[in-house]
Amino acid sequence: MDNCIFCKIANEEIPSNTVYEDDNFRVILDIAPANPGHCLILPKKHTTNIFEIYSDLLGIVYKIEKKIASALKAALNAEGINILQNNGEAAGQSVSHYHIHVIPRHQRDNVTLNKEGKSLSSDEFSAIVDKIKAEL
Amino acid sequence: MDNCIFCKIANEEIPSNTVYEDDNFRVILDIAPANPGHCLILPKKHTTNIFEIYSDLLGIVYKIEKKIASALKAALNAEGINILQNNGEAAGQSVSHYHIHVIPRHQRDNVTLNKEGKSLSSDEFSAIVDKIKAEL
Repeated sequence: MDNCIFCKIANEEIPSNTVYEDDNFRVILDIAPANPGHCLILPKKHTTNIFEIYSDLLGIVYKIEKKIASALKAALNAEGINILQNNGEAAGQSVSHYHIHVIPRHQRDNVTLNKEGKSLSSDEFSAIVDKIKAEL
Repeated sequence: MDNCIFCKIANEEIPSNTVYEDDNFRVILDIAPANPGHCLILPKKHTTNIFEIYSDLLGIVYKIEKKIASALKAALNAEGINILQNNGEAAGQSVSHYHIHVIPRHQRDNVTLNKEGKSLSSDEFSAIVDKIKAEL
């Protein structure tokens, strides 16, 4: 997909705050996080949504979800974790490349899912990447 | 787990609006849906959250997600689907038994995820069960 920004990020044509990478997936920090540490799991191969994604990828992505969720608990003292996957614009999917949100949560943090996120400086993003990587 | 309401529902000690069942999972309508057709996928074995659930279940639950998402599109003309799984009270998990929300969405439906849901009559619930089952 020539014009898919998540294809470009997943395949390193555009830089990102990557916390994890393997043959099939790249995990990056969301640039407008619901909370600091909000990660996106991106398959490297383009696929739009749950109706199109290859079953073999869905059969292994849960391992990445679990790994990232555990790292967020340890690195950022997350008290809760939301795992959210939106399909279609009507569901709040903003980029048409299948992705999974892994969102660290804290008691009374007033996060509303699928709403505009927070602004962080590039130094703040880098510090979070380091903390998460240290737990992976 | 003696006092877990989702254990009782998953194992039919408490009635529910079931749309799908197999050896490992029961899928029911949420009693306070974000939108009509909002389903919950419940493993029959008790497990609290993503940190505790058996990997073999996570490795197959995506098939149920996909099946239910497709049925909601067909049965209720859903234009989008949210798949949401909350871990911990801080993340909005209201029952401590692992479950996955599959939520049908429509353009400009003003749904806010993890907020109080809609009230439906038992006849409305039954009609939705029939529509979804017809697509499964």
